Amino acid sequence: MMVKTPNIYCLVRGSAEGRTRLNAFDKALLNAGVGDTNLMRMSSILPPAAEQVDVSQINFPKGGLIPLAYATIDGNTPGRLISAAIAVGIPEDDTEPGVIMEFEDHADLDTVEGIVRQMVIDGFDYRNRKLKEIKSFGIEHKIKNCGSVFAAAVLWYK
Amino acid sequence: MMVKTPNIYCLVRGSAEGRTRLNAFDKALLNAGVGDTNLMRMSSILPPAAEQVDVSQINFPKGGLIPLAYATIDGNTPGRLISAAIAVGIPEDDTEPGVIMEFEDHADLDTVEGIVRQMVIDGFDYRNRKLKEIKSFGIEHKIKNCGSVFAAAVLWYK
Amino acid sequence: MMVKTPNIYCLVRGSAEGRTRLNAFDKALLNAGVGDTNLMRMSSILPPAAEQVDVSQINFPKGGLIPLAYATIDGNTPGRLISAAIAVGIPEDDTEPGVIMEFEDHADLDTVEGIVRQMVIDGFDYRNRKLKEIKSFGIEHKIKNCGSVFAAAVLWYK
Repeated sequence: MMVKTPNIYCLVRGSAEGRTRLNAFDKALLNAGVGDTNLMRMSSILPPAAEQVDVSQINFPKGGLIPLAYATIDGNTPGRLISAAIAVGIPEDDTEPGVIMEFEDHADLDTVEGIVRQMVIDGFDYRNRKLKEIKSFGIEHKIKNCGSVFAAAVLWYK
Repeated sequence: MMVKTPNIYCLVRGSAEGRTRLNAFDKALLNAGVGDTNLMRMSSILPPAAEQVDVSQINFPKGGLIPLAYATIDGNTPGRLISAAIAVGIPEDDTEPGVIMEFEDHADLDTVEGIVRQMVIDGFDYRNRKLKEIKSFGIEHKIKNCGSVFAAAVLWYK
Repeated sequence: MMVKTPNIYCLVRGSAEGRTRLNAFDKALLNAGVGDTNLMRMSSILPPAAEQVDVSQINFPKGGLIPLAYATIDGNTPGRLISAAIAVGIPEDDTEPGVIMEFEDHADLDTVEGIVRQMVIDGFDYRNRKLKEIKSFGIEHKIKNCGSVFAAAVLWYK
């Protein structure tokens, strides 16, 4: 096998302003508590029975390779809103995987988080899988000069 | 070493309509037989002597981290065509790696698959490597409301 | 843990013309000395005390899964400049991670490399981390028909 399937996850979010788009994103990662790691984006399934922990409980190795699913958006129009949200659907049957959805837009967080929660409902619906619970987490930011928002489900190992 | 180099691969394809672009993509992955995994996109080389298997022969761990190369395109203009295709070039010398190419466009599959096959020929040509065979696989979809197509070479381990 | 944290890195760069954007990118990877591998893009931190080596000293497995951070840009307007640059900030305290930044633009390399170096300075500044040294590396290319440039920090293991 390639690598062990992760068995814990945490939901994180951050926002920041920076001199460039990448600096704003980098600061948003630091704000979210996952800066100083090497994030590797993946399509977005929650392994069966993965346990939720708080990001503060995980001691990520500095520069370590960390799999995650995330929503992000940046912009440089002063005064515009940007929002990113992540939602995780937990199945009733804990031998089945969950579904992670990401969404971001130039909109307020209520709108973006409402959409990403519906995306999870749809994901369970066309899988014919019973949904026990949706957990969602997001962040809204009004751009000053060059802003970025980030919301993620980070997978790891206990 | 980071992780073992994969030694098998399969070609997959899927298409779907969804309420959002990400839902359509998620359904296309399920349609392709690789939903419910965590896909990690990579630049696109076939390890030497990797063996082709059918996706049905692989038992991917639910939520497992799966490396792959893929083409994808989505759209929400009713009636427009979208196509995605993957091509794998197998070298004559099986100690050498193969080349995987991806292409997608608002076009019919014949056009898209023709281009991706030529991309493999070019990839062998400027490597000065002898090409034994090209395998290609793709999918075409006429958009109803919000459609997505997906074609991939998935790498794994036997 | 998922995978061991890398402990060496190299800076590479390449440029090429190709018949398609992906072929130009593929040739730029070959030109950089990292073709024929499966590159997996990550957000961009240098593990503490990682040692710099020349790409020629690393024997990457053919088709192996290689983590890296990169800048890339392509274009098909004859005569236009494209440049990509990578910069790595090394901290004074070698138990702390470094910061890798990527930037690319339709501009000359001096401009692009100047920006990416400033991005590293900013990244250390808002981390309140002391910067010992910046290493940067980049490439400029004048497009003939369809060109691509690529500059990367590739992480690996000794």
